[in-house]
Amino acid sequence: MKFFDDITIGAVTEFGSHTFTAEAIKRFASSYDPQRFHLDEAAAAASLFGALTASGWHTTAVMMKLIAAAGGPLPAGAIGGTQCASLGPSPGFDDLRWLRPVFAGDTLTYRATVTDKRKSRSRPDWGVVSSRFEAHNAAGEKVLDVTGHDLVERRTSGRAGLQSAGLNEDL
Amino acid sequence: MKFFDDITIGAVTEFGSHTFTAEAIKRFASSYDPQRFHLDEAAAAASLFGALTASGWHTTAVMMKLIAAAGGPLPAGAIGGTQCASLGPSPGFDDLRWLRPVFAGDTLTYRATVTDKRKSRSRPDWGVVSSRFEAHNAAGEKVLDVTGHDLVERRTSGRAGLQSAGLNEDL
Repeated sequence: MKFFDDITIGAVTEFGSHTFTAEAIKRFASSYDPQRFHLDEAAAAASLFGALTASGWHTTAVMMKLIAAAGGPLPAGAIGGTQCASLGPSPGFDDLRWLRPVFAGDTLTYRATVTDKRKSRSRPDWGVVSSRFEAHNAAGEKVLDVTGHDLVERRTSGRAGLQSAGLNEDL
Repeated sequence: MKFFDDITIGAVTEFGSHTFTAEAIKRFASSYDPQRFHLDEAAAAASLFGALTASGWHTTAVMMKLIAAAGGPLPAGAIGGTQCASLGPSPGFDDLRWLRPVFAGDTLTYRATVTDKRKSRSRPDWGVVSSRFEAHNAAGEKVLDVTGHDLVERRTSGRAGLQSAGLNEDL
């Protein structure tokens, strides 16, 4: 993860692809979104979508998994001589749109474009980076569009805690 | 699920409570949000939060589970003489804010308030209902705030499919 100071507005990050199998769609849905069009092929065939579709929350959970994989595995600190910044928690998201259904077997490709960055008003060691996250299916159709905000460590960071309150102060 | 026509702006739905155990926090995180403060007590203690916290996406997944449980188990059609509407898919969410951390053992109580309803411009059998979803912890602190939009069947519904494209037309 780059430090706040080194992040450029307009920078694009490709997070790779993920295929939504029928099994994974049903597993996520049974735990977190038990609606008929996410759980069972026959019931889904009779539903609005006409076929089994992934929960929208499944598509954002996979997005988060890919984001964490891209920025997460490196512990903060010096790695091979390179300083790595901590990715902080997210205070929230805006304009989340599930534009098209994601069917069993569909492969989504996720990317993010940095749209804004600003110093935290309340935490001098951190900045807030806003990014537009998009996912497209194999036909090139956009299925997911959301703008997220993340706290990212500054180079000047003293690694002070964020405290438990007020994640939302900077939005 | 009530039909679109019978839903009142200002109506409040209580979805009940959910306790986030350390085990469930880690399980969700290992699948969908593998960041240090969601995965391991010791690493979390050294992180910004100072203790293990639930992924924000876990708190919204549980919200969706409770929504589906409230509106989902009844198949559309006549149940005990009462007509039930179909809850359609959601075209998206706005203004998602994770306001405070959710720690292991925290119990969140979820509710929704209907903030707007309007007929679908493109689908005469459906309406769009907007609701503000909030979750509070046991101390009464709000931890999650998000406005969601859902397609809800109208009484006049002919149960036509939504087709695969253009979920977002009405937002």
